[in-house]
Amino acid sequence: MSVDVAVVGATGLVGEALVELLEELDCPVAELHLLASGESAGKSVPFRGRNLRVRELDGFSFTQVKLALFATSAEVAGEHAARALAQGCTVIDLSGSVEGALVLTALNPARLDELSFPALLRVPCAPAAEVAEVVAALGDCVELQELSLTACLSASQLGREGVQELARQTAELLNARPVEPRLVDRQYAFNLLGLVGAADASGYSAIERRLNAELNELLPQLQGRVQADCLLAPVFFGDALNLNLRSAVPIDLSEVRAALEAAEGIELVEDDYPTVIGDALGQDAIQVGRVRQGAAGPCNLNLWIASDNVRKGLGLNAANLAALLIKHYL
Amino acid sequence: MSVDVAVVGATGLVGEALVELLEELDCPVAELHLLASGESAGKSVPFRGRNLRVRELDGFSFTQVKLALFATSAEVAGEHAARALAQGCTVIDLSGSVEGALVLTALNPARLDELSFPALLRVPCAPAAEVAEVVAALGDCVELQELSLTACLSASQLGREGVQELARQTAELLNARPVEPRLVDRQYAFNLLGLVGAADASGYSAIERRLNAELNELLPQLQGRVQADCLLAPVFFGDALNLNLRSAVPIDLSEVRAALEAAEGIELVEDDYPTVIGDALGQDAIQVGRVRQGAAGPCNLNLWIASDNVRKGLGLNAANLAALLIKHYL
Repeated sequence: MSVDVAVVGATGLVGEALVELLEELDCPVAELHLLASGESAGKSVPFRGRNLRVRELDGFSFTQVKLALFATSAEVAGEHAARALAQGCTVIDLSGSVEGALVLTALNPARLDELSFPALLRVPCAPAAEVAEVVAALGDCVELQELSLTACLSASQLGREGVQELARQTAELLNARPVEPRLVDRQYAFNLLGLVGAADASGYSAIERRLNAELNELLPQLQGRVQADCLLAPVFFGDALNLNLRSAVPIDLSEVRAALEAAEGIELVEDDYPTVIGDALGQDAIQVGRVRQGAAGPCNLNLWIASDNVRKGLGLNAANLAALLIKHYL
Repeated sequence: MSVDVAVVGATGLVGEALVELLEELDCPVAELHLLASGESAGKSVPFRGRNLRVRELDGFSFTQVKLALFATSAEVAGEHAARALAQGCTVIDLSGSVEGALVLTALNPARLDELSFPALLRVPCAPAAEVAEVVAALGDCVELQELSLTACLSASQLGREGVQELARQTAELLNARPVEPRLVDRQYAFNLLGLVGAADASGYSAIERRLNAELNELLPQLQGRVQADCLLAPVFFGDALNLNLRSAVPIDLSEVRAALEAAEGIELVEDDYPTVIGDALGQDAIQVGRVRQGAAGPCNLNLWIASDNVRKGLGLNAANLAALLIKHYL
């Protein structure tokens, strides 16, 4: 019942978390192939008590595996995912660059029944997955009509290099040295960046376009009434989300609390607010607090969400999807 | 034409900025009395080339001045503003705790014509003033129907002690020592706090209640359709605001840019986004960037705003109001 699997981008922040989770979840992986491009090939990553050597992606034939998970940049996934599919391998893309079925196992696992395999699949970006899972947990408490989100992302959104950039800039400042921006084009330490990367002609960043599109796809009841903006906070890991929902009918806050309390992948932080540092990092549950009525009235619900973007937002959703695929579809 | 003036809370972050601005603006102050409570009395603050000694608030008789500016905590203003008025002194409250006419000179200076003096006046909190001034600058470009704001506040929102808390916690972490929260109840360095202070029974903090109430008062056309949430970012100074507006009619982005460009107290950051560190701190203009259509369609306008909360958001508005009062009303 187990199959051979490849993880592409195995040395990145998300790739490493993914390999850990495949082991933790006892995912039915026979042989695991770890792949990366360029200088990362040759490193090793632990899996089931052994150090697996990371091999060069370019020369790898995907005929050796039935499933490949791409925890890479959009460019690398764009270049290699189609090749993997052509070689008979089902793909789970984490980068958002591949055209394929969007599956979040907590929300729409039945989507898999409509597909023929091998197939191209993708998981949502972390904030889209986190918001969609929270909305799904609310069930009938909310007749969702409108969604407004300010997503405060962290350095890890830019990968390991983002984390290093924030650490280096912070140390420079605390040592009274001039800040030398490298990965970002300005001071990031003790500053809030109102745009993650570059904006397109419409004024939105790639992560905002992905987040908006995926929320619209995962929550079709919204009929496009989604506004999601991303900023980059001087925080190393985790997503912190200010979420406002509008319902067609008044919302009962005690029902909302009960629904969140009952949801498996969610932890309700009662009468307080969660933070990434104190509550979310390393956790498999999305932390939800500040359950309150919106200022505009009883049809409005506001929540404050903290989540481990690398482990929960991306890694766990991809690993759960891999396990489901191997057990029932591949 | 000049009058004697008192600044209460003269040793705080905002009080010091206010004294500086009274000098810079050439505000018609005859004698300036600097006041503070407790341990801050006895310090000195520079004004017009002299070091003025800060005196104890408790024993001060407001009969000596015609105007008093309260840059204090809500508690201190609540305790002393009414006494100042009873002693014949007009009060400008910066703390938000005093019942009085809300005046933002950039928006509603004519409000002063309706008052009899001495009077109790208050200026809005920094994010309310910043948002209201930007909305006013938009003029006829927007027929404002709804406003949604995520205000990312900084350590300076908690005063000088807040700035010290963030600095100390950051140094502890970078020196691999355990973080010892004192002013806030958890790790603040490299973390986002989703609530500024304590929440009331409805789930909102004091600054959120003030911000929502003042936006509703300054922008009555909204008829209560305001949602403003505040979080505390690990940044020392400045406000960073994610603002979404909905108009009754479609918005022309080039008209919006022209209106912002023409507005005196605003600097349009074209094709980029401003940050507090790079653009806003020390500036008298509110920095506005990321002028774009909202995802929900052409009636929606989104902006990213950075402003010096201490100098521009509070200090300059209070100093401008003081100058206007002295010249025409006192």
